Amino acid sequence: MANQKNEIPEIVISRLPIYLQKLNQVLKEGKTLISSQELAYHLGVTATQIRKDLSNFGGFGKQGLGYNVVKLLESLRDILNLNRIWKAALFGVGNLGQALLSYKGFSSKGFEIVAAFDNDPQLVGKEIKGITVQSVDDMEKGMCASEVKIAIITVPAGQAQALANRLVDCGFKAILNYAPVTLVLPEEVKVSNIDPVLVLQKMAYYLD
Amino acid sequence: MANQKNEIPEIVISRLPIYLQKLNQVLKEGKTLISSQELAYHLGVTATQIRKDLSNFGGFGKQGLGYNVVKLLESLRDILNLNRIWKAALFGVGNLGQALLSYKGFSSKGFEIVAAFDNDPQLVGKEIKGITVQSVDDMEKGMCASEVKIAIITVPAGQAQALANRLVDCGFKAILNYAPVTLVLPEEVKVSNIDPVLVLQKMAYYLD
Repeated sequence: MANQKNEIPEIVISRLPIYLQKLNQVLKEGKTLISSQELAYHLGVTATQIRKDLSNFGGFGKQGLGYNVVKLLESLRDILNLNRIWKAALFGVGNLGQALLSYKGFSSKGFEIVAAFDNDPQLVGKEIKGITVQSVDDMEKGMCASEVKIAIITVPAGQAQALANRLVDCGFKAILNYAPVTLVLPEEVKVSNIDPVLVLQKMAYYLD
Repeated sequence: MANQKNEIPEIVISRLPIYLQKLNQVLKEGKTLISSQELAYHLGVTATQIRKDLSNFGGFGKQGLGYNVVKLLESLRDILNLNRIWKAALFGVGNLGQALLSYKGFSSKGFEIVAAFDNDPQLVGKEIKGITVQSVDDMEKGMCASEVKIAIITVPAGQAQALANRLVDCGFKAILNYAPVTLVLPEEVKVSNIDPVLVLQKMAYYLD
């Protein structure tokens, strides 16, 4: 399965959640069929790209009829393993970490933060949004034998690599990294970075 | 200039800030020369890709000698228009918006949030991290004639498109969108989306 998964370019996989998001919105508006042209228009991509992306996973929809929105949504959820709740652990309960704990958008989309860790003694033991903050020192105790395989890192940049190494040793398989550093980790661990500065710097290129 | 800028693929531009980030880290560690191989290793990309990306902007470094870190940093900052401070306005001062106002990583990297807007009467007039929250209703008054061209949107999904339309009319040129919707805007306005759910959904594909 691992090999098969890696045959499809990651850039294709990264577009599927965007299709999913748009299709959910389309469904809420009461539409049950959508053409690749229409979907493409709303997403600022080409219809060819959408058809090509989806063709990696077999046939969806008939030429000229458009996609059945509900069926395509179900298929995309299947492909992305979203027909279950993925539990995640949060590391770093500062301003951003607390904002993520408060964020209501995770649970409806298949994710739930079930544990939170910090090394600030003033935070450890405190309950935030129903979750008791634990010491990072105790991470291995509760997490390594658990089913939690996703970590969200919002610790300061200087602490991120060492923490990530521990997370990998502990058995985490996916890391969403908000710390402004590039983590060097084994290939089999998926790492995605969210750094608003990098995005702003890219946009600055286009400003004059 | 606009045409010239658009000749280089956006995916190349989006990697330059990552090179910049890593080079800053390398410089802090006291290194003054770095090979494309070494830079590539730390970033999980190929040396060929780095050389190809940089070749879009002329020659850097001599074959076999590696890059002069300081010079490459300066060149990348020049290319990305980062030799100045870019002012930004924040829209939505909820948990995430407040975390962004508190974030110290912007100013050292060339960005400063100079205004914040919300439509919650309990927030309007309140000072947060030295910035007085203004009503979104008053946005046009203060912003349209100003030099602020970057907007950061952290309003709820349902409000984002209407707000973005107003921002475009007002003269904003770049939007960093945290609302979980795809905004449909004129091509000349740069939009980048940050949505942790989309990133987590992509990673879920690789989890079994």
